[in-house]
Amino acid sequence: MRVGVLTGGGDCPGLNAVIRGVVRKGVQEYGYAFTGFRDGWRGPLEGDTVRLDIAAVRGILPRGGTILGSSRTNPLQQENGIRRIKESLAKEEIDALVAIGGEDTLGVAARLADVYGVQVVGVPKTIDNDLSATDYTFGFDTAVNIATEAIDRLHTTAESHMRVLVVEVMGRHAGWIALHSGLAGGANVILIPEQRFDVDQVCAWVTSRFKASYAPIVVVAEGAMPKDGDLVLKDESLDSFGHVRLSGIGEWLAKQIERRTGKEARTTVLGHIQRGGTPSAFDRWLATRFGLHAIEAVHDGDFGTMVALRGTDIVRVPLSEATSKLKTVDPRLYAEVGVFFG
Amino acid sequence: MRVGVLTGGGDCPGLNAVIRGVVRKGVQEYGYAFTGFRDGWRGPLEGDTVRLDIAAVRGILPRGGTILGSSRTNPLQQENGIRRIKESLAKEEIDALVAIGGEDTLGVAARLADVYGVQVVGVPKTIDNDLSATDYTFGFDTAVNIATEAIDRLHTTAESHMRVLVVEVMGRHAGWIALHSGLAGGANVILIPEQRFDVDQVCAWVTSRFKASYAPIVVVAEGAMPKDGDLVLKDESLDSFGHVRLSGIGEWLAKQIERRTGKEARTTVLGHIQRGGTPSAFDRWLATRFGLHAIEAVHDGDFGTMVALRGTDIVRVPLSEATSKLKTVDPRLYAEVGVFFG
Amino acid sequence: MRVGVLTGGGDCPGLNAVIRGVVRKGVQEYGYAFTGFRDGWRGPLEGDTVRLDIAAVRGILPRGGTILGSSRTNPLQQENGIRRIKESLAKEEIDALVAIGGEDTLGVAARLADVYGVQVVGVPKTIDNDLSATDYTFGFDTAVNIATEAIDRLHTTAESHMRVLVVEVMGRHAGWIALHSGLAGGANVILIPEQRFDVDQVCAWVTSRFKASYAPIVVVAEGAMPKDGDLVLKDESLDSFGHVRLSGIGEWLAKQIERRTGKEARTTVLGHIQRGGTPSAFDRWLATRFGLHAIEAVHDGDFGTMVALRGTDIVRVPLSEATSKLKTVDPRLYAEVGVFFG
Amino acid sequence: MRVGVLTGGGDCPGLNAVIRGVVRKGVQEYGYAFTGFRDGWRGPLEGDTVRLDIAAVRGILPRGGTILGSSRTNPLQQENGIRRIKESLAKEEIDALVAIGGEDTLGVAARLADVYGVQVVGVPKTIDNDLSATDYTFGFDTAVNIATEAIDRLHTTAESHMRVLVVEVMGRHAGWIALHSGLAGGANVILIPEQRFDVDQVCAWVTSRFKASYAPIVVVAEGAMPKDGDLVLKDESLDSFGHVRLSGIGEWLAKQIERRTGKEARTTVLGHIQRGGTPSAFDRWLATRFGLHAIEAVHDGDFGTMVALRGTDIVRVPLSEATSKLKTVDPRLYAEVGVFFG
Repeated sequence: MRVGVLTGGGDCPGLNAVIRGVVRKGVQEYGYAFTGFRDGWRGPLEGDTVRLDIAAVRGILPRGGTILGSSRTNPLQQENGIRRIKESLAKEEIDALVAIGGEDTLGVAARLADVYGVQVVGVPKTIDNDLSATDYTFGFDTAVNIATEAIDRLHTTAESHMRVLVVEVMGRHAGWIALHSGLAGGANVILIPEQRFDVDQVCAWVTSRFKASYAPIVVVAEGAMPKDGDLVLKDESLDSFGHVRLSGIGEWLAKQIERRTGKEARTTVLGHIQRGGTPSAFDRWLATRFGLHAIEAVHDGDFGTMVALRGTDIVRVPLSEATSKLKTVDPRLYAEVGVFFG
Repeated sequence: MRVGVLTGGGDCPGLNAVIRGVVRKGVQEYGYAFTGFRDGWRGPLEGDTVRLDIAAVRGILPRGGTILGSSRTNPLQQENGIRRIKESLAKEEIDALVAIGGEDTLGVAARLADVYGVQVVGVPKTIDNDLSATDYTFGFDTAVNIATEAIDRLHTTAESHMRVLVVEVMGRHAGWIALHSGLAGGANVILIPEQRFDVDQVCAWVTSRFKASYAPIVVVAEGAMPKDGDLVLKDESLDSFGHVRLSGIGEWLAKQIERRTGKEARTTVLGHIQRGGTPSAFDRWLATRFGLHAIEAVHDGDFGTMVALRGTDIVRVPLSEATSKLKTVDPRLYAEVGVFFG
Repeated sequence: MRVGVLTGGGDCPGLNAVIRGVVRKGVQEYGYAFTGFRDGWRGPLEGDTVRLDIAAVRGILPRGGTILGSSRTNPLQQENGIRRIKESLAKEEIDALVAIGGEDTLGVAARLADVYGVQVVGVPKTIDNDLSATDYTFGFDTAVNIATEAIDRLHTTAESHMRVLVVEVMGRHAGWIALHSGLAGGANVILIPEQRFDVDQVCAWVTSRFKASYAPIVVVAEGAMPKDGDLVLKDESLDSFGHVRLSGIGEWLAKQIERRTGKEARTTVLGHIQRGGTPSAFDRWLATRFGLHAIEAVHDGDFGTMVALRGTDIVRVPLSEATSKLKTVDPRLYAEVGVFFG
Repeated sequence: MRVGVLTGGGDCPGLNAVIRGVVRKGVQEYGYAFTGFRDGWRGPLEGDTVRLDIAAVRGILPRGGTILGSSRTNPLQQENGIRRIKESLAKEEIDALVAIGGEDTLGVAARLADVYGVQVVGVPKTIDNDLSATDYTFGFDTAVNIATEAIDRLHTTAESHMRVLVVEVMGRHAGWIALHSGLAGGANVILIPEQRFDVDQVCAWVTSRFKASYAPIVVVAEGAMPKDGDLVLKDESLDSFGHVRLSGIGEWLAKQIERRTGKEARTTVLGHIQRGGTPSAFDRWLATRFGLHAIEAVHDGDFGTMVALRGTDIVRVPLSEATSKLKTVDPRLYAEVGVFFG
């Protein structure tokens, strides 16, 4: 039996751990052969493959990124995309496919299974942890640790200077990274995409914080939006070269706070460092177990499924669940954390 | 309403996060006053208290250890111990008590509730993660990360020299830290207390590993025992709790491997660094939520309970569950991980 | 003898280590008493003092920031500023002053010594390492480690995607942090304030890098400038809210690269996290020794001096050297590192 | 021109950075070809070579260990060892050799140069930093950071329990790692091989520390010895180099402290994790520059030399200096640090 493996979408710490788990168990326990496809669905679309055996997965466990490469190539947006993939898999004599990716990647996998009966098992991947089918996705814990460590560092400046520190973290549609890292980092304000925020309320927290102890730290998800949204997101300030200057929500918020409270504010935009580097121990554990269970599903012939975490167990759910519902932050959970604001 | 708080047993990253969560929510939402007791049950036994308010818990979130101090003082082993605690609590006008600790600490709490009707809520703490009532306990994730990072470092020596590297990690009765860090660190052998190991099998894995690639890393829980164990592992020294010290399995195993395979072996004993330092983001999240939910249980009058993690939810379980059953590694889980041995 | 201590300018990992070294040795070896002044020169200006004894400096070694607080208050820009400080020191019965800070702070110290004969010893502090009188300043090593770790993380994205990654690091006038972290992080382009860069050359390196292996990482100091400088620093691009968007040189450069090479580019702005958190071991060592030697200089009556590192020795140099000459990156050193570009 | 490269002795973070620096500059600036020899002098002795070009050194900068492997094979202890190496180099058409290693490795290099006129440039390597010819050697800073982080973690246990914590770090003949990490970690006692220690004095510091604040941390170099030492510290086991193993001073000392002070004591033996994992930014900088300057020395025909750090400059010194004198801790420096004991 020959099994294809591919990784799609944004990179995420733990992808290599999944690949290693799939291949180690597939080769040693089931005697499978493997074909790696490069750069997500681009691989089967263009017949771009890579050797994938025990030697190829040696030493990759602690490495971030993916040895298979990744891309956002979406065959659903290409002419005959799905059919061409079907043909490519046939040509490579692939009996089953393990697709590791997010909503888009698994959406294609579901189509392949539905339309052409391709034997697919999915492994969910989203650094934003916004998939309702699983308690956690790998990569998220690493991102939260990185953001938390950054917030920890900012505390020392906050303690020594009278400056508001704004940290912009990942999260376009869901505020999980902001919520977890903000709580873990002891932030004084946490803003998430699920709830439009009131700049005056933010400024009130900032001001009360200054009175109570030292300078506040504000964590804002990149997708967070103020209540009076689009209109206010203009900024006339000039940078040091005399030109108009603005970036994302973090920079915008810092300016608003400066203007309204009279306190200096500084912004850090963590960007891609949140998704890079070696995975945390939890993510290695989760990703490895996802890999082991995915190949077990292949062996069981349990196709059209996706592995998921429930409590401490790895379970299988229909592949369609991967794309069914965005897991956003429950307002009650957000309220629970609010006791630390201000 | 006045609430007492104490931390008992070995220190564990996250204790301060629990205390902070309890106090922040208790003061701000419910208007409670707090009394901290020093060094676990020694505090109420001797009437040793400490101020505990918003200012006292400021900045303690990222700090390991416990601002209340800890000890293994067990009133069950003292004359009239339980009664004296009851009296001490009455004298301090404590209406309810939040007890944070492991099997021993919560066992005393359960007795106080049963015998004297003391209003107690428990928060479970064991760095070994060996409590069946909760999916995870705080401190465990930090310990696993520390051990994993240590194993990561050893890989570079393993790649450059022909030396077997043995790492002894915590875990007297349960192998969770060994299992998680061994898997996350890519160890080639993992030995846990739940299954007596065969030294010849270990040596066979070591030898096959040398043939396949480079030098092997062996992770061994401090409580792991060889099949023909008892005789060779005696150590006459007693620790302060009067128990025979079981230390030294790592060093012992390294010598056995040297003798039987002819390969050099080196040992690292991580010891207390596994339970020290700043908690991981996950442990801060979990511990903080435990604290918030514990004080909510106090507010709800839901005494005799303990908070616990189930999936991503914090639930309440009877305090008696804390001591009912040791959560050991399931043999099937251990077998699942075995695909990476050798 | 009573010694005053203050910390001025931007915070910097290691400030607390200096304070601890000064106080420990001053009290234990020389029997001195200490007065801490809050927030740099604001402290003596406003008579704002803080207790400073052995207990006050306990446990501060690993903590970033400064327990004395800091500010950029400059008495040279205030009416009678220097005289008011002189009077304040007299009122507090300060016999000698240890001033820890950068160019500005030590400039004031030099004036106090020159004009009023105040007995001052300086300790140099600049996270940018741009002081010619000393081989290294504390805080720099920490900043370089943080930036290097960030670059390390970006490599995994670079390996998995076809994206140029731009990292903006500190350094307005000197490129030391960019140079050291860029070299240590294996960056493919390093841009420093000392040499105006040619955007076309940068794009040529980017393009050649893509051909040779995987996506390039560009490290740019915040003070780096393109050859045709001011004019091109306009940017018409719109952000996701439909508004003009631009921030610093990193963001600007990323846009230029996208436009000229057709490759996607992403920016990370590390900001204040570079100066926060626990100091590296080297910075703790250097800062502690600076503290020990500063108080020794006080004891020797060797005033008007500043401690400095030469090789592995701590020496004393005239306080005036602190402000005499900016230490910028030698063009030959920059050329030496150029072998790794592209 | 063809240049051979080898790495000998214990592994050390930064070895790969040296190799990369040598090869990058050698190929790009001088057009040299390279031959890597495996496992130190075993490579040329047995004609075991490995491809070494730009592609081979890609991505190795952040990796600990050495891609060339290492061993302690010493041709001076083999019949005709030096001559066989000379012949092997001739057979491989090696024009010049870059030897990276410690006292033993460079001693062989010096003999090759003296006896056979082999064109050798040396790069010094010792994680113990005990080489008098250079201010620092790479690997040392990484080891100190690892040990310091471990000590940081132990502080939280020390603050929460009444336990003496003993940490055994590397350093057989020189106490640099103990001194730097002990100072940076805020240890209360530091014991080094250069000065035999008095157990009663150690116990006095331990006792006074308990009175002043909380539990003490004792850092002891593996080669430190008590005043009445030799008798109690025998260990019959021999390591692979035929030397008596000196391990166990940490465990021994902990037992002595328990016995004499009545306080519980715990030991951590860091072992090989001190020399593993990714190099610190400083070590990458130093090692890379050593590599660049070594190949420049080859290009200049300046053979029989070794690169060394003096202040911030890389200089060349005679190869013989590598083995001439052990750099031990100056008693005055040790005394300077003593202000923090107890």
